[in-house]
Amino acid sequence: MAKEPLPVPTFDTPKAAIARLSLYLRQLEALERDGQSTVASKQLGRLLGLSDAQVRKDLAHFGQFGYPGVGYRVGELQAVLRGLLGLNRPWRAALVGVGNLGRALIGYQGFRERGFHIVALFDRDANLVGRKVGGFAVEPLERMAERVRAESVELCVLAVPADAAQQAADAAVAAGVVGILNFAPVALRLPERVSVVSVDLGLQLEQLVFQVNQRRPTKRSQSAG
Amino acid sequence: MAKEPLPVPTFDTPKAAIARLSLYLRQLEALERDGQSTVASKQLGRLLGLSDAQVRKDLAHFGQFGYPGVGYRVGELQAVLRGLLGLNRPWRAALVGVGNLGRALIGYQGFRERGFHIVALFDRDANLVGRKVGGFAVEPLERMAERVRAESVELCVLAVPADAAQQAADAAVAAGVVGILNFAPVALRLPERVSVVSVDLGLQLEQLVFQVNQRRPTKRSQSAG
Repeated sequence: MAKEPLPVPTFDTPKAAIARLSLYLRQLEALERDGQSTVASKQLGRLLGLSDAQVRKDLAHFGQFGYPGVGYRVGELQAVLRGLLGLNRPWRAALVGVGNLGRALIGYQGFRERGFHIVALFDRDANLVGRKVGGFAVEPLERMAERVRAESVELCVLAVPADAAQQAADAAVAAGVVGILNFAPVALRLPERVSVVSVDLGLQLEQLVFQVNQRRPTKRSQSAG
Repeated sequence: MAKEPLPVPTFDTPKAAIARLSLYLRQLEALERDGQSTVASKQLGRLLGLSDAQVRKDLAHFGQFGYPGVGYRVGELQAVLRGLLGLNRPWRAALVGVGNLGRALIGYQGFRERGFHIVALFDRDANLVGRKVGGFAVEPLERMAERVRAESVELCVLAVPADAAQQAADAAVAAGVVGILNFAPVALRLPERVSVVSVDLGLQLEQLVFQVNQRRPTKRSQSAG
């Protein structure tokens, strides 16, 4: 799978195109499950609500993957996208914040399936420290640097309340993690070398409500009262 | 705020532009916190990694909001976007699945802040039914239709395991919800009239890993072994 070196994407690649790589990959996986071995940019775009020109442009940022008269080979393009997205190897993550959200994330199948493994748990709550959750003992934030090194952890999943987020992020950065998945509804101040993706679940609900409104622009006034 | 009728967006509006409305809104909120009252499409785009042409095109789907020589008025455009996104009124939601993830979502501040209120809880686990969580008693799926009507619930937040998702979604649809926020890693079969947004946390981690890889394209090989 994708043995050849992949083109290294540059910082000039638009964020939106990067976000779409994950969507292309999921759609290709669905096509493969349906037994389809090639796909035209037009079909791929239609399935994702994009123009075929947009699909070709997005993928062209990373190389030349289409075949004239054939389109993209589903298996091959999947391997390319997995390589680009860093999914061709496992990633080890520490979880900070072992509350309800943290516990849900420890058991989240979608992480393991993609090669993301939570291998260390931290919490500032002394009552939680020492307890076992999902097979791992919860440790104090003070041990993070030592444990991140020992466990070859690169990523941190931050599932703490807003008021604890910056302190936890600072601890993770000091411990040497290079990427943070942030669930706290707060903008983190981080050094340039550390990447962050913030998960905003309110944003997802907004998107849902937009769709709901679109599908019944008139019904609301009819059913009022 | 936004008293005038807003243009009704059509189904032709690209999904990606709709997704960006939420991002524009968040950026405008940040600008307002910083005391900025107007913003040019160029600045708004730069802050979000988009071209100014893209910003103007996205917003032009919904109307004419810019002022020559001024740009957009931060407060006014916020009100427009809130209206478009359906954030100018509260939304009532039922939560199905009162496990760790469900409990985390009940307490999720980002929902309430945006006007999304979870007002009813359901679970298929008889051991959970009757227990109080976050002020609400957990009820069996069988009571969903009755409760959705009584509580004027329009949305359903689905926080159940993959194998329980379709059954729970069917119950929610039968009960009359018109939108589902789905956390289960499974594609739901739903009638055309029901909207769905699926939250894929693995996808967010992929985006993080992509960024991490980008920031140190050569370091990995140096530190190997």
